[in-house]
Amino acid sequence: MTTAPLRLGIAGLGTVGIGVVKIIRQNAAQISARTGRNVVITAVSARSRDRDRGVPLTQFAWEEDPVALARRDDVDIFVELMGGHEGAAKNAIEAALAAGKHVVTANKALLAIHGQKLAETAEAAGCQIRYEAAVAGGIPVIKALTEGLAANRIQRVMGVMNGTCNYILTRMEATGQGYNVLFDECAQLGYLEADPNLDVGGIDAGHKLALLAAIGFGTRVDFDAVELEGIQNITLDDIRRAGDMGYRIKLLGVAQMTGRGLEQRMSPCLVPANSPLGQLEGGTNMVVIEGDSVGQIVLRGAGAGEGPTASAVMADVCDIARGTRLPVFGQPARSLIGAPAARSASAAPFYLRLLLQDKPGALAKVATVLGQEGISIHRMRQYEHAGDAAPVLIVTHKCTRSQLDQALEAIAALDVVTQTPVALRIEQV
Amino acid sequence: MTTAPLRLGIAGLGTVGIGVVKIIRQNAAQISARTGRNVVITAVSARSRDRDRGVPLTQFAWEEDPVALARRDDVDIFVELMGGHEGAAKNAIEAALAAGKHVVTANKALLAIHGQKLAETAEAAGCQIRYEAAVAGGIPVIKALTEGLAANRIQRVMGVMNGTCNYILTRMEATGQGYNVLFDECAQLGYLEADPNLDVGGIDAGHKLALLAAIGFGTRVDFDAVELEGIQNITLDDIRRAGDMGYRIKLLGVAQMTGRGLEQRMSPCLVPANSPLGQLEGGTNMVVIEGDSVGQIVLRGAGAGEGPTASAVMADVCDIARGTRLPVFGQPARSLIGAPAARSASAAPFYLRLLLQDKPGALAKVATVLGQEGISIHRMRQYEHAGDAAPVLIVTHKCTRSQLDQALEAIAALDVVTQTPVALRIEQV
Repeated sequence: MTTAPLRLGIAGLGTVGIGVVKIIRQNAAQISARTGRNVVITAVSARSRDRDRGVPLTQFAWEEDPVALARRDDVDIFVELMGGHEGAAKNAIEAALAAGKHVVTANKALLAIHGQKLAETAEAAGCQIRYEAAVAGGIPVIKALTEGLAANRIQRVMGVMNGTCNYILTRMEATGQGYNVLFDECAQLGYLEADPNLDVGGIDAGHKLALLAAIGFGTRVDFDAVELEGIQNITLDDIRRAGDMGYRIKLLGVAQMTGRGLEQRMSPCLVPANSPLGQLEGGTNMVVIEGDSVGQIVLRGAGAGEGPTASAVMADVCDIARGTRLPVFGQPARSLIGAPAARSASAAPFYLRLLLQDKPGALAKVATVLGQEGISIHRMRQYEHAGDAAPVLIVTHKCTRSQLDQALEAIAALDVVTQTPVALRIEQV
Repeated sequence: MTTAPLRLGIAGLGTVGIGVVKIIRQNAAQISARTGRNVVITAVSARSRDRDRGVPLTQFAWEEDPVALARRDDVDIFVELMGGHEGAAKNAIEAALAAGKHVVTANKALLAIHGQKLAETAEAAGCQIRYEAAVAGGIPVIKALTEGLAANRIQRVMGVMNGTCNYILTRMEATGQGYNVLFDECAQLGYLEADPNLDVGGIDAGHKLALLAAIGFGTRVDFDAVELEGIQNITLDDIRRAGDMGYRIKLLGVAQMTGRGLEQRMSPCLVPANSPLGQLEGGTNMVVIEGDSVGQIVLRGAGAGEGPTASAVMADVCDIARGTRLPVFGQPARSLIGAPAARSASAAPFYLRLLLQDKPGALAKVATVLGQEGISIHRMRQYEHAGDAAPVLIVTHKCTRSQLDQALEAIAALDVVTQTPVALRIEQV
């Protein structure tokens, strides 16, 4: 076993970067005992050198330019915690690989978009790219999927992987406040990305899903094929009515291989309230993996925050220190297949909420359109209302999303519909 | 990367062994893609050669003696699935290590009792002993703790790790049937070990806890120090009364480092009904790991059965195929410390059920004894009763088990107590 210290260069000293500095200070003895090596930080880089970050940093060399940091002779692992899928982070990672350094990163966007090319580069150079922190914070889900379930054919990967969205949805339910109120609360609490659409639009969680899908199904990471839908249109009414039927609404990612190709969806879904996914509260993350041998495995934990995310970064560092070497996506990047994107291939029941003019025959018109598209109705209920528009709730039998979209288009054209219908998939979990 | 096939010798062709054979037949392409090597079985051994096991085995060499199997030149990994903590399994593993073979095993008893010595032998020989299948079936919990959370100081490890016990407890609640009825049902369903006390007495789960504690706390595995208590005395009344207070009863393993040493307990506990542990139904397993950086991680899945357990065996095989090398308990066996056993060092509230003679002053006598031991009462309730003995339920404020045991001894000596009191810890989860 090599006994020379393993030297880290850390680019990015935000929450996660500082968390990594703290772990190395506090748990050096454990890490050394477990990996057989001392892990040290030799150099750091960040936007502002002078900001007080609450931990002493002066013992580390300072680099203004993360690319220069990545190339330093005294750096064995380049730890990229800057974020962003272009520019500095990408340049610096490429520089690190070109210089023969391993890379540990929390950057889901960069890997979801450029992962295939970076993986090929890393594997050609004999370098590791590790990214446990990129998905579901401290939960060792990349490891579980890549290693712990390596002998399984993965059948489905699901996850609630954006804590902010789950916080908003569960707080709406608990407090009776609307989406906009809780969005503002999240903004004040600092729970939102600089571009909030990354969170509430499902993009951030979609990046994570694309990474899990690549590992699980041996496919080239394909974020563009993820069907994205955010939580912006979920109302308190939807949450309550779903609850009446024994469901809760989650921003749920689902990846599964179908006869037509790889289906990847990140969208608000109804899940049974008494399932592990349905019981998930607040900012917690959960990933569910189904394999042909193992059945269903559920992993739960904090999806963000200084400690959990830094724990995942350091798990990757410890693996490298121990000499563990793995292909970036669990098998050599050049062997990953380019699966066709199967948009909404799998059928499911759907929850529909419509606002109809309260006049004779309105409901019949909707039912007729659904029938014409081959969609049968499992449950239908008209709610009490004030005014001349009646909220109607329909649960369909199984149909595909494209069947449903055609029906919704026809329904929208009806003169009795006064609002764009809400349609949410009911995922069998 | 080595491209020669990795050759397994499998000793034991029961449920798990046959599961391994099936995975290698069915998922050979995946395994090869992911590990860069073909994984093949070269030889097998079992008690009966002629039994029809539903899969063809004639292409594998047959050994009557597992020790001979372990020593074969065409075996790289000795896969021990015989069970038992002495005799054949132990001899064969020792023979494999002496011959320089890696070992993959599902044998929790053997490792809980002889793990330290075997680990030292393996590490001196440069061999792996891997045992993901020994704890919580298909859940990759050994991996999560050893690798995924390697940079954490582990604070507490908890788990429901005997599916049969959880099945009995949750079925008692759901059906209103008593312990004995469900014990018999489990016997008929084949859910019980040949010695049922391994299950219902908490021994099997205690073995698993001892392994997790060794990894988590860097201590020499010490099964003898596990405080064991089974579920045999849990009544339907206890389950219902716990439920009235918002708790469920689980056979819960808890390991934590205290100021006085390592505390390891496997005993029926009350846990909040709305916690992940409290929500666990049927034969499912759950492990909860708490680390200083990561916070709380929850892992859930099937704890037994052909597919899940074989999945874990094969995860270890895949790791070895990929070249991953780890100390048996996550750090070199000779560096593990011999922590003193801190029996019941941590304080907790307790649930007490007593049967008291229904006469004036009976309750006062009990309360007085508790007070004398420094135990204060949080809630007390006398239930309706027929006859002249009254069931009384007490929830204490926090106290240690030894405080409580002294009080219980004094209470048992009171003339008003008509039955041995039941005392269950309320674990904060």
